Amino acid sequence: MKKIIKGRSKKIGLPPGTLVHIGDKKMDKVKIIVVEYNKSQYNEREVENIEKIFPIKGKNTTTWVNITGISQIKIVEEIGRRLDLHPLILEDIVNTDQRSKVESFEDYIFIVLKIPFYEEQSSEIRIEQVSFVLGSNFVISFQEIENPIFNPIKERIRNPKSFIRKNGADYLAYCLIDVIIDNHFSIIENLEKDIENIEENLLINPSKETLQNIHKLKREIIFLRNSVWPLREVINNLERAESKLIKKTTGIYLRDAYDHTIQVIESIETLREMITGMLDVYLSSVSNQLNKIMMLLTVIGTIFIPLTFITGIYGMNFKYMPELYWKWSYPLVLLIMLIIGALMLVYFKRKKWF
Amino acid sequence: MKKIIKGRSKKIGLPPGTLVHIGDKKMDKVKIIVVEYNKSQYNEREVENIEKIFPIKGKNTTTWVNITGISQIKIVEEIGRRLDLHPLILEDIVNTDQRSKVESFEDYIFIVLKIPFYEEQSSEIRIEQVSFVLGSNFVISFQEIENPIFNPIKERIRNPKSFIRKNGADYLAYCLIDVIIDNHFSIIENLEKDIENIEENLLINPSKETLQNIHKLKREIIFLRNSVWPLREVINNLERAESKLIKKTTGIYLRDAYDHTIQVIESIETLREMITGMLDVYLSSVSNQLNKIMMLLTVIGTIFIPLTFITGIYGMNFKYMPELYWKWSYPLVLLIMLIIGALMLVYFKRKKWF
Amino acid sequence: MKKIIKGRSKKIGLPPGTLVHIGDKKMDKVKIIVVEYNKSQYNEREVENIEKIFPIKGKNTTTWVNITGISQIKIVEEIGRRLDLHPLILEDIVNTDQRSKVESFEDYIFIVLKIPFYEEQSSEIRIEQVSFVLGSNFVISFQEIENPIFNPIKERIRNPKSFIRKNGADYLAYCLIDVIIDNHFSIIENLEKDIENIEENLLINPSKETLQNIHKLKREIIFLRNSVWPLREVINNLERAESKLIKKTTGIYLRDAYDHTIQVIESIETLREMITGMLDVYLSSVSNQLNKIMMLLTVIGTIFIPLTFITGIYGMNFKYMPELYWKWSYPLVLLIMLIIGALMLVYFKRKKWF
Amino acid sequence: MKKIIKGRSKKIGLPPGTLVHIGDKKMDKVKIIVVEYNKSQYNEREVENIEKIFPIKGKNTTTWVNITGISQIKIVEEIGRRLDLHPLILEDIVNTDQRSKVESFEDYIFIVLKIPFYEEQSSEIRIEQVSFVLGSNFVISFQEIENPIFNPIKERIRNPKSFIRKNGADYLAYCLIDVIIDNHFSIIENLEKDIENIEENLLINPSKETLQNIHKLKREIIFLRNSVWPLREVINNLERAESKLIKKTTGIYLRDAYDHTIQVIESIETLREMITGMLDVYLSSVSNQLNKIMMLLTVIGTIFIPLTFITGIYGMNFKYMPELYWKWSYPLVLLIMLIIGALMLVYFKRKKWF
Amino acid sequence: MKKIIKGRSKKIGLPPGTLVHIGDKKMDKVKIIVVEYNKSQYNEREVENIEKIFPIKGKNTTTWVNITGISQIKIVEEIGRRLDLHPLILEDIVNTDQRSKVESFEDYIFIVLKIPFYEEQSSEIRIEQVSFVLGSNFVISFQEIENPIFNPIKERIRNPKSFIRKNGADYLAYCLIDVIIDNHFSIIENLEKDIENIEENLLINPSKETLQNIHKLKREIIFLRNSVWPLREVINNLERAESKLIKKTTGIYLRDAYDHTIQVIESIETLREMITGMLDVYLSSVSNQLNKIMMLLTVIGTIFIPLTFITGIYGMNFKYMPELYWKWSYPLVLLIMLIIGALMLVYFKRKKWF
Repeated sequence: MKKIIKGRSKKIGLPPGTLVHIGDKKMDKVKIIVVEYNKSQYNEREVENIEKIFPIKGKNTTTWVNITGISQIKIVEEIGRRLDLHPLILEDIVNTDQRSKVESFEDYIFIVLKIPFYEEQSSEIRIEQVSFVLGSNFVISFQEIENPIFNPIKERIRNPKSFIRKNGADYLAYCLIDVIIDNHFSIIENLEKDIENIEENLLINPSKETLQNIHKLKREIIFLRNSVWPLREVINNLERAESKLIKKTTGIYLRDAYDHTIQVIESIETLREMITGMLDVYLSSVSNQLNKIMMLLTVIGTIFIPLTFITGIYGMNFKYMPELYWKWSYPLVLLIMLIIGALMLVYFKRKKWF
Repeated sequence: MKKIIKGRSKKIGLPPGTLVHIGDKKMDKVKIIVVEYNKSQYNEREVENIEKIFPIKGKNTTTWVNITGISQIKIVEEIGRRLDLHPLILEDIVNTDQRSKVESFEDYIFIVLKIPFYEEQSSEIRIEQVSFVLGSNFVISFQEIENPIFNPIKERIRNPKSFIRKNGADYLAYCLIDVIIDNHFSIIENLEKDIENIEENLLINPSKETLQNIHKLKREIIFLRNSVWPLREVINNLERAESKLIKKTTGIYLRDAYDHTIQVIESIETLREMITGMLDVYLSSVSNQLNKIMMLLTVIGTIFIPLTFITGIYGMNFKYMPELYWKWSYPLVLLIMLIIGALMLVYFKRKKWF
Repeated sequence: MKKIIKGRSKKIGLPPGTLVHIGDKKMDKVKIIVVEYNKSQYNEREVENIEKIFPIKGKNTTTWVNITGISQIKIVEEIGRRLDLHPLILEDIVNTDQRSKVESFEDYIFIVLKIPFYEEQSSEIRIEQVSFVLGSNFVISFQEIENPIFNPIKERIRNPKSFIRKNGADYLAYCLIDVIIDNHFSIIENLEKDIENIEENLLINPSKETLQNIHKLKREIIFLRNSVWPLREVINNLERAESKLIKKTTGIYLRDAYDHTIQVIESIETLREMITGMLDVYLSSVSNQLNKIMMLLTVIGTIFIPLTFITGIYGMNFKYMPELYWKWSYPLVLLIMLIIGALMLVYFKRKKWF
Repeated sequence: MKKIIKGRSKKIGLPPGTLVHIGDKKMDKVKIIVVEYNKSQYNEREVENIEKIFPIKGKNTTTWVNITGISQIKIVEEIGRRLDLHPLILEDIVNTDQRSKVESFEDYIFIVLKIPFYEEQSSEIRIEQVSFVLGSNFVISFQEIENPIFNPIKERIRNPKSFIRKNGADYLAYCLIDVIIDNHFSIIENLEKDIENIEENLLINPSKETLQNIHKLKREIIFLRNSVWPLREVINNLERAESKLIKKTTGIYLRDAYDHTIQVIESIETLREMITGMLDVYLSSVSNQLNKIMMLLTVIGTIFIPLTFITGIYGMNFKYMPELYWKWSYPLVLLIMLIIGALMLVYFKRKKWF
Repeated sequence: MKKIIKGRSKKIGLPPGTLVHIGDKKMDKVKIIVVEYNKSQYNEREVENIEKIFPIKGKNTTTWVNITGISQIKIVEEIGRRLDLHPLILEDIVNTDQRSKVESFEDYIFIVLKIPFYEEQSSEIRIEQVSFVLGSNFVISFQEIENPIFNPIKERIRNPKSFIRKNGADYLAYCLIDVIIDNHFSIIENLEKDIENIEENLLINPSKETLQNIHKLKREIIFLRNSVWPLREVINNLERAESKLIKKTTGIYLRDAYDHTIQVIESIETLREMITGMLDVYLSSVSNQLNKIMMLLTVIGTIFIPLTFITGIYGMNFKYMPELYWKWSYPLVLLIMLIIGALMLVYFKRKKWF
């Protein structure tokens, strides 16, 4: 089951700024990709040693360093030391249970975001954390695992005519955030498909599995919502941050990103309302199903009650019961019972009682 | 079923400002109507080629260009290029899954709205998107399909004495928005009629269909609400926008439009409360119905229980049972059983147990 | 049934400011009462022709014109022309589906309010609309029907020593609003009586009618709430309006009116909570009632089951059943059955199972 | 039953500022206690005639006039005339259905509060109204009935070393308010005890009385909440009021009072949540109880069904049924039936079906 | 059971600032630990007499005085007198039912917080109160009982290289608060484990105990939430307090603490949603379980009904019933009954009715 809090207790009492990796260790090796570009130049390379990415500042190119595998604390420490990052920032980078947030400093802006993934097989949503350090001419991104969602951005950087090549680090950061927000739409589409599947089962054949699926989906949606709500604040704070690191022309893009975030949140709330409604339908339809069966059984019982009563009458041992001695009374009684039974059956059928 | 998100995932990773038509392609051909007017002049024509609408700026007339069929991306691109619109605006025009919003620029204001339609046959609400670009002396409207709701405005423009002829582009934009808001009232009236229909069935004959209708209506209302809420913000932002493009005299009209929007929202919330209440009534009335039937069947059973017991007594084979040998005991027992049955029937009837 | 929206759709597409009477036509004739007063003078007359009320401005008296029957559009138009009212104001006066609001202009303040009435017979709340135009020395009130609630104010104006005679038009407007707010208290008292009546039935004899009454009352309360909420805004805006038309000394009166409005809203919310609670009690008490009956019937059945079993035993045809040939076994078995039945009855009674 | 609105309708149409006592007349006689004190002096006396309390202003002592029995309107009028109080203030004093509020004037501050009392016998909460007029060197308090909660304050004033003797009228007013807020804590403690009592019954023996108690308590809590919420605003407004009548040093005391008010509100909300939860538990536990009994009865019936079937078999009149003529078959069949019954009993017991 | 209000009523009527210990007396003896440190020095000692901790102010070291056992009022009084603390502050220190708050003065800041503990044995959450007085160069902490959660901080102070040694009293105060916030995460982890345990039982074997556990947990979560919500305000006020006592560099740490507090609150709200969802599942699953059993019993009854009817037929005493005299009819009838019973059993099994 998904955890609300991931092993935070092991940090209790440690001084603030202590680097402790919190979360599952998802990768053993660290992979560092460096992309440097400006209008005319483009250079992409993988480096083995974190030292090799420096110096970053003071170049005429925009540098994007993408570091995958944050569980190796030393690398994060080294970057922090070189770029003079606040210890709390470093702590937040390696703590994958961090809430999405943005923190603005003189020289850099620090952003933590959540990337949700939909696992087709288990219909579960995994949530990865990504952090950005946005400087005047660089973006450093820290990811838990290697993740294909940033690949299209690399493609765009490779294209010398693309808008991204004409703009600086703040636009690159926006593009990375935008792709994360857009990613939510595909998850919502998947969740919607799941809801439709459940809904079909709900009407045809509501089983215990359906209930479990509804509850699982409900929990998934709650977790997704928890990870998305802070996103709204983050984008809003970025848009309003009066930092020299974000150019004025990037403002409209951030406003657009904000609109999309609102749309994501509204969609998730609608999904939640739908799933809650489905739970009510499920409960009422299961209860109805049970009641229908009980009613059918009771109808069967009720049909036999007067018939059994008749057999009881002719099972009485009175000496003076003239019918007992008539020749055709036995088949007649059988016939009468048949008729009574049939009439009741027809009556109950007409009343739609079974 | 209606989708919360329409195929947004096909845009993931594309650069912002890329024009991709999102939504169902509802028209093959584009239709462009140009209306030019001022106090004394009036001119309405259909043009085949988008080039022919230019130049727009700098004329002494107000120009309204109504473009139907936004799935043809080239035309949107051409207009964007000619009027120097921001790429994100063009992206929003062709993305029919856009949230209602207003974006204010130096030279123009961009507005996206939703027009809901009530389809009589399916009792479903379709939602179309319309975008406006409001300039100093022009309004360009982009619609998904040809839509009769703007016809009355054309009529008013044709009338040389109308108020609209004495005012500029901002008043025209207001009129277009006003007609969209008013359109919501007719939808609410239709939804109210649907609710009344369901309510009648609810009391007379609550069936499974009733439940489905309630759920369908509930979902329709949720979708409508989702499309209406942002409208409030849009009108509010327009009213407060300190843009030279909106004259001060138009302010009171926008305030009036805002009041109507609030009324629309309150009505939808009331509808929602009513439909939720109906669901509760439905569930309780179905459950009661079932219980009533069960009770009736149980009453039948209960009446026969003592009678069958009596037949059991006289079916016992004791040698010394004097009654068995009396002459009238058989008819007497029958009579007694009849009386007991009748008394129970009367008692249960009086107690209103069936 | 009450409508959320009253025939608004007939206005779709009409230019803003078009006078269309919306709502039921409740009066055929128009009645115009003019009251002019100052500290020393008092004059009340009914006029046939709207022209006769002019001129209003520039007199040394405060003039109150009360117009009943707004469905006659021409009169509203004439007043609008004479006092130079904005066309949207005139439109709002004749549209009885208008939301309560206040609109402040240079020369006049326009106020729309709702007056709820409790119809004793049907226990229904009718809602009438009243509009005020408050000028420097006049108040013009527009009512749908002739309404006794303003009579006490006329009485007070007639009294030369009354506070109202010493104050101007703004105080008169406050008095009219105050009487409308106070009117809500009597409605709340009536609704409370209705709730108490239902509550009594709820405990003694919950019937289908009770459910319908609860639902009717719930809907009444929702409608009342919808009409009251905007009232709060109206009074608040009036109090804060920095208009030269409202004297500073009137401020404390408006603050008092605001307090009363809050009290009205809180009372309605409490009523709503109570009626919702009653619905839950109703459902649970109906369900309990049914269950109790079912249990009683089952108890009856259960008592006879072992007795019938005993008759079954002595109805078996075994040759060697010594009891069958004893002389007293028949009455003994009857006695045993009686005892068993009585014991079960006592046991079930003690367990309070019926 | 408690009323939401107490006879407010008798004031409809009366001019604002008209003194009408609203509420139950709880005392016939008026009792006026005057306490005058400063650091060195102390004087407490009961006066018969309201005239004797004047002059108040301009003395070097702080004067506290406590008037019990506000239904005598003349006294309130006289005080109002002498101290030049606003007519609306006088109206509010005698209207015991007033919402808690604070109204700040140049020369005095007017405060209306509610004092809730817990009646041990009926477990009901009675709510009394108390008003304060705080001037530069006096506090006049108006109470519905004689009330012991202000006695400790008198005690403190009598003590020449107490803090209250060193401070002015504003501190006295704070002390009176503080004692009212503290009074809420004892009520919450009592309500909590009631909830605990109900809870015990809930698990052992949920009866119809329990339901009524829950509903009564729920209503009490709703009424208490309604009376407490405005208290928060009152204290907050007092704290923020920039009045020369409240010294700066009294600010921290008011902030403390505000904190306590928040705690009262939170406690009441928690009580409400608890009582709502108890209602759900009650409903589910009653329903379970009924189901358990039904199940027990059904189990009894089910055990006898196969036994009765066996007696039926040997009650058949076939000529060739060899068992009928065996000597030991009757006791054998009885034994078999005993075993079958016992086995079923054990099985059902193990399954915990009864 | 936990109390919402702890014995507050014994303070009613006492003057504000009176020191009355409220809450359970958890320790008899007072323990006073004094820690003095700066970059180069470190000194920790236990003092018997409160006098010995003075003077505190004016030293070049940061002093942390940790006082355990606040029920000894004299010590609190003495400290208050020496440091010139406001009487209300002293009252709050000894009142363990105080709401979390921060109060800012010229010379010191007063903070009250709640420390929740999870008692493994009873799965209950105990809540202790801790107060801080933060001065220019000292922190005095008042605890109810000796508590290990501050030990790691002592460890850090002992370490001469630690960040805490380089910073002043405000950073020490932050560290103490941070450790309290972090402590919440371990409680949330424990609550989550409890929820998982219940959830397992819920699906396998929902018993009455499960219901009690759910309710207990729900109440625990409500209490925890009540204690955590004010924490948010406290941290926010501290961060925004423009006090010279809090250095600017401490701001980012407080912002981080605020983020963690938000995360704690969100986690608790998620827990609450989960536990509420579980209650619904429990109720529905218990009801289903009961219904399943009832259905099984009814199925058993239904199978025997036609069989018993058949025995009834051949128990009739008609003279002319040819079957009775056939040789093989008895075993044939037994066989037929067996077949009918088996067919019904198979049919019901296939329908999954039991």
